[in-house]
Amino acid sequence: MAEAIRVPEPDLIEWVAKVFEKGKVPREHALISARVLVVSDVRGHESHGVARLPYYWRKIENGTINVDPKPRIVHEMPAVALFDGDNGLGPVVGNQAMELAIKKAQESGAGFVSVTNSNHYGIAGYYSMMAMDQGMIGISMTNAFSLVAPTFGKEPNLGTNPISVAAPADKERPFVLDMATTASPAGKIEVAVREQKPIPMGWLLDKDGQPTDQPLAMFQGGTLLPLGSDYEHRSYKGYGLVLMVDIFSAVLSNANYGHKQEGMINLSAKPEPSNVGHFFGALLVDGFRPLDEFKQTMDDALRALKDSPKIEGHERIYVAGEPEFEAAEDSRKNGVPISAVVVNTLTGLGDEVGVKFDFN
Amino acid sequence: MAEAIRVPEPDLIEWVAKVFEKGKVPREHALISARVLVVSDVRGHESHGVARLPYYWRKIENGTINVDPKPRIVHEMPAVALFDGDNGLGPVVGNQAMELAIKKAQESGAGFVSVTNSNHYGIAGYYSMMAMDQGMIGISMTNAFSLVAPTFGKEPNLGTNPISVAAPADKERPFVLDMATTASPAGKIEVAVREQKPIPMGWLLDKDGQPTDQPLAMFQGGTLLPLGSDYEHRSYKGYGLVLMVDIFSAVLSNANYGHKQEGMINLSAKPEPSNVGHFFGALLVDGFRPLDEFKQTMDDALRALKDSPKIEGHERIYVAGEPEFEAAEDSRKNGVPISAVVVNTLTGLGDEVGVKFDFN
Repeated sequence: MAEAIRVPEPDLIEWVAKVFEKGKVPREHALISARVLVVSDVRGHESHGVARLPYYWRKIENGTINVDPKPRIVHEMPAVALFDGDNGLGPVVGNQAMELAIKKAQESGAGFVSVTNSNHYGIAGYYSMMAMDQGMIGISMTNAFSLVAPTFGKEPNLGTNPISVAAPADKERPFVLDMATTASPAGKIEVAVREQKPIPMGWLLDKDGQPTDQPLAMFQGGTLLPLGSDYEHRSYKGYGLVLMVDIFSAVLSNANYGHKQEGMINLSAKPEPSNVGHFFGALLVDGFRPLDEFKQTMDDALRALKDSPKIEGHERIYVAGEPEFEAAEDSRKNGVPISAVVVNTLTGLGDEVGVKFDFN
Repeated sequence: MAEAIRVPEPDLIEWVAKVFEKGKVPREHALISARVLVVSDVRGHESHGVARLPYYWRKIENGTINVDPKPRIVHEMPAVALFDGDNGLGPVVGNQAMELAIKKAQESGAGFVSVTNSNHYGIAGYYSMMAMDQGMIGISMTNAFSLVAPTFGKEPNLGTNPISVAAPADKERPFVLDMATTASPAGKIEVAVREQKPIPMGWLLDKDGQPTDQPLAMFQGGTLLPLGSDYEHRSYKGYGLVLMVDIFSAVLSNANYGHKQEGMINLSAKPEPSNVGHFFGALLVDGFRPLDEFKQTMDDALRALKDSPKIEGHERIYVAGEPEFEAAEDSRKNGVPISAVVVNTLTGLGDEVGVKFDFN
């Protein structure tokens, strides 16, 4: 990442919150949304962090996000619920829905909440870790802008639909899987376009469904390949996971599934609520076995992997989430890294809304 | 598949059940186990079907499977439970555990059961479809023989750990994802060894962790690559999914996780109970929204994908599970296909245990 500046995390959160407040988002909601965006940068994933703020701002500005939502439970049973986000900011809706899942898991052992009428919710891992911090295994999924074609198809009809699962450990860092179900996230393609570099084959198909190494193809009707990349390497499994997330998040909640999910790229062409769907789950570890024993077994299992023999040229085996925890330590010590291109974008946005971005 | 014969499904189930009964498995358990094995062949997946019967038989014979288990709930809350399989046959334990998950979902909306002290349970999709047939979204996972290395590692420390998720539709066929989390199942490598053919690069690493197209490497200390195949195509996501299944199935249940899971290959060297772990989930659709409306939306969502434009040279877009439902229709009409090599194996086993395999 072309790194330009480092901003102290609290200052960055405060600045983002002020931008939201300029859009008439209540202070509390502005802070929650700012925290969710900033934590992505803190953890080293610029693509889902403050770089997305202009997108949120445009949707607030054109009225397609409700800045004062009244989310509600549509239907529930002891361990499940359908939650209507009333078209609020994704992080606000997501926090409320995951809190509901956690409450149900405390009482019943499991809590699963499918969410309709929401918006882009930032990184999936933020929510799974909310449950993890309560001694639970947390699950978080969302559907997203259509950028993926089904196997053998050539039209973007599904999103990069991420899955996150977070499980606590004791002395080891916890397991925090947080992955788009595609071979590449859209953000990496955007970066390649900016840097005018080719991408590896197996990430992208062009508008005719042919493999390409030209990142610009994504903006010209191309489609992102699911995890697996090609048929011989089981891209249909990745497509299956993409569709699974859509079913949990959008079919179960009756949100905009599949092709109905507007493209971020076509935002200006379609000023309608996104009606994004999410899916949150929480499993109380104590409902199965004592949490401290589970954490011990986690430590043993993770260490066994990390201590196992490495391929020549590699010195370390990672567990999902480890690079992000290390990035977070660095960010909290040295400031959150913001790349030059994002600094430019945020400076422009700050000037536009009247909250100067002056961390240079 | 080199197809030799076709056997009527009921006859094949009866023959398999008789073999189990020769091992002193009670009739009811023998029938359940036979049904689970045969349904894999019926659905076109020979690798998890009756071809595995000799493995089950060896473990019954050497006393590492308990043919008369008393499974029990170790701990439970309204929506979750830890279930001890008492080292019974995997299909017997799996059926009981999924029935428990279904019962909990009927009462609470969700039911999640982690299982310890079990054995190889056949195809994951059998169990997820049990829940699906009750108007639920079914989830089924299991850990398995260590054949996969963590990314940058070269020792087989994790299984091919499958994930199945099944969701009902109305007029369309349901969504039944049932996938190993590796780029190739072990079964396909075994077939390549038998046929003395190279395999695609990206399926297997040799014992030094180097990519290879020689299938025999799997039996010489090599490791199966997770979905994604290489770092550039995000094999670490596949590794994350492999480990996630191990956490749900074996860490949460305190079964033999990761490297503790004996290799099928080393069966004779280690005559101990496998202590396989499973994980079952059931979500009552009616707990979220009315089942008939959900099924309608499923139809709409699946049709939109299937009707979307195809890549030149492809005439059809599939939904997970569709090829298997079509194979099952064929199997039920024309008999279950058993390849020549499996016929040989079963003939030998039949002669050994005294239940002649004479469907030629």
